[in-house]
Amino acid sequence: MSFVDIILKKKEGLPLTDEEIRMFAMGAATGSVPDYQLSALLMAICFQGMDARETTTLTMEMMKSGDQMDLSGIDGVCVDKHSTGGVGDTTTLVLVPLVAACGGHVAKLSGRGLGHTGGTLDKLESVPGCRVDLSEEQFIEQVRKIGCAVSGQTQNLCPADKALYAIRDVTGTVGCSPLIASSIISKKLASGAGAIVLDVKTGNGALMPTVEESVQLAKAMVDIGRKAGKPVYALVTGMDQPLGTHVGNALEVKEAIEILSGRATGDLLEISLDLGSFMLVACGQVSTVEEGKKRMREAIESGAGLRKLEEMLKAQGATADVCRDVTLLPQAPVLVPVPATRDGYIVSMDTKAIGYCTQHMGAGRAKSTDRIDPAVGLVMQVRLGDHVRTGDTLCMLHLRDASQAEPAIRAMQEAVCIGDEAPEKRPLVSAFVSAEETVYTKGYGPK
Amino acid sequence: MSFVDIILKKKEGLPLTDEEIRMFAMGAATGSVPDYQLSALLMAICFQGMDARETTTLTMEMMKSGDQMDLSGIDGVCVDKHSTGGVGDTTTLVLVPLVAACGGHVAKLSGRGLGHTGGTLDKLESVPGCRVDLSEEQFIEQVRKIGCAVSGQTQNLCPADKALYAIRDVTGTVGCSPLIASSIISKKLASGAGAIVLDVKTGNGALMPTVEESVQLAKAMVDIGRKAGKPVYALVTGMDQPLGTHVGNALEVKEAIEILSGRATGDLLEISLDLGSFMLVACGQVSTVEEGKKRMREAIESGAGLRKLEEMLKAQGATADVCRDVTLLPQAPVLVPVPATRDGYIVSMDTKAIGYCTQHMGAGRAKSTDRIDPAVGLVMQVRLGDHVRTGDTLCMLHLRDASQAEPAIRAMQEAVCIGDEAPEKRPLVSAFVSAEETVYTKGYGPK
Repeated sequence: MSFVDIILKKKEGLPLTDEEIRMFAMGAATGSVPDYQLSALLMAICFQGMDARETTTLTMEMMKSGDQMDLSGIDGVCVDKHSTGGVGDTTTLVLVPLVAACGGHVAKLSGRGLGHTGGTLDKLESVPGCRVDLSEEQFIEQVRKIGCAVSGQTQNLCPADKALYAIRDVTGTVGCSPLIASSIISKKLASGAGAIVLDVKTGNGALMPTVEESVQLAKAMVDIGRKAGKPVYALVTGMDQPLGTHVGNALEVKEAIEILSGRATGDLLEISLDLGSFMLVACGQVSTVEEGKKRMREAIESGAGLRKLEEMLKAQGATADVCRDVTLLPQAPVLVPVPATRDGYIVSMDTKAIGYCTQHMGAGRAKSTDRIDPAVGLVMQVRLGDHVRTGDTLCMLHLRDASQAEPAIRAMQEAVCIGDEAPEKRPLVSAFVSAEETVYTKGYGPK
Repeated sequence: MSFVDIILKKKEGLPLTDEEIRMFAMGAATGSVPDYQLSALLMAICFQGMDARETTTLTMEMMKSGDQMDLSGIDGVCVDKHSTGGVGDTTTLVLVPLVAACGGHVAKLSGRGLGHTGGTLDKLESVPGCRVDLSEEQFIEQVRKIGCAVSGQTQNLCPADKALYAIRDVTGTVGCSPLIASSIISKKLASGAGAIVLDVKTGNGALMPTVEESVQLAKAMVDIGRKAGKPVYALVTGMDQPLGTHVGNALEVKEAIEILSGRATGDLLEISLDLGSFMLVACGQVSTVEEGKKRMREAIESGAGLRKLEEMLKAQGATADVCRDVTLLPQAPVLVPVPATRDGYIVSMDTKAIGYCTQHMGAGRAKSTDRIDPAVGLVMQVRLGDHVRTGDTLCMLHLRDASQAEPAIRAMQEAVCIGDEAPEKRPLVSAFVSAEETVYTKGYGPK
């Protein structure tokens, strides 16, 4: 069977055999199938989908296309967490130290920011001296020693996914549930995770705008986990506004430190506790999510969580103790407030536009080779439903240069929509998906 | 607007602007848009289609992407004909000389065979010495002098179409009506045709298997012609069995000569007269198709058609007078009959399989760089509806080598299906499509 026949088969809506999917994954990994054939098949998959068997096969073939990390030297179940990406979403830096402080083991491979979303590696690198290029040995040794590590993935992890993702990014084939699911889970399985907790973002700042699509993606991933024999839990969480108040690399590290210090609360903390408690359940440290949340709150109160972050940053080479003194983080020289242009309620935020606004300020990347400015970003001072008066500060811009102020102010005034009526309050978590069940928060179930 | 946004727009089913389609065509022609993005957009077009305005714009942009032939030096309207490709379809070699003998001017750029279909250039090259690489000047001069020429397209005619076709061929995106229509008509317009008659094949040996799809394709092409100000007529004709009895390059030249000599008749002659008479109407040589057919039949009886073919072949360098002595054509050394394996009626033929059978014998190409054997092929001795007895010859194989006989016999016995009941007789022409009307042959209209 030639590769054109495989493309035609999917184009006609027929399921591909395991052997055909293997040709696809290996063709991508080795370069034996040209990019233009891969992209044609990817587009056909966007229209015709893949069933659960196909999606699982693609995941396993992508996982097998490169190195697989062996975490068996670490005691207990290594639990990992993945977010589909959002704005002001720095849960990793909050929950990894907390889970580790509660006895869990977290060996986390993270990514960099692209487009409107941020990436944990960029945030960590804003801490002076902090490295994210640990060798496999260093990485495993650090988890054994202190319970957690966050690093970039090694060169040869899931080369099939790497090749396909590079093509998807430039051919309009990113937003497709089986492709997203297999991409995420293949990397998690290859990195040796024993259990996975997923944060599937939903809303105007997420890959999947609707709860239904997000639940579908969550189910696809949980299903692959079940077939691969690894427990996977997914929470579908809101991304209709930045999750935390801080957007930008050093700014998000600062917010994580504030939360771990007990000085800040809010949605970022709540989602971190939700996800972290499932991680603690998954690795057997607690038996209920309630117990998990309680233990994590205690770790904040006792300072154990903050000490764990400090320990982790130090282990990864940090030269400044930013946990004790956040002013040691890079700071932008120009602070400019964005004023509200009318009285009213914050009825909606174009979260993607907020992400792109910080990207244009230098906090993010338009293409993967762009350099980022760790200090810049913004701090939101309003949340959905808040009432403001003309001139009130919507957010504070942290800029490299005063000339950036005008376009950023305009972009933010457009992104934050003020209206006359208070909007309906939405729950932080819309649904929970496990191998056994899908539980919707009230008002979010299928009609 | 980046090219990814154009892909996403079409993926979502939105029409592209003229400017976006220009980016697509120019990106293909110049190589400024990478193949993997072109193939993703092509696949999205296969699923979402293009409306009449988009299809016409793509056609005009592809036409403008390279050189355009100027046929204004030739008196009267130059009329061209195009077939969407079939098996044993050598109408060009029959009707071009006949139309020229009746006073029409035919400046025809043809293609080569690929897959299961044959190509006129390969057939012409089976005539010893005959050239198909005329320069534009030679080509135009020949049409002025003798009324007809058939040659390969120049290097820089429709480079956008050439690039897109090469990608479509290997990405499963060939079978898509707006893409086929724009590819065909862009080349015809660039080659300077003043009027175009289309032979849209329908059936199991055609690109479009159903009459409805074929009519849709015909309408798309007629519509572009109308928008471009050129009369276009289309006939939808049957391809549920080889059109002529001969399949293979020299064999098809031989059949054309037999028909022009008045020694052979059948479907190939009838379709050639149908298409040719529309060409004569289109270029104003006759006022009705009946008159056109009458004139062409007279040109056969008088020998004027055969003399015109002789003249054309000679003008293009032919060193042997194959019109007077068909044994001067390349001849295969091994002739093997394919016997019927049971009594009954010929109820169906897998026409594509017959095409591929001759391809495997060496008469066609699997990829564009394959060399073909001009002598090999087969001569059908039965047509749909014929009654045969066990052992009767279904067709005669013309082989290079006796070792090819066994698989070819098996393939042909599978391709020609014999049953107990005589099949329903189908008309040769299923529909006629012009800018003004679509006329179905009785029994073929939309329900």
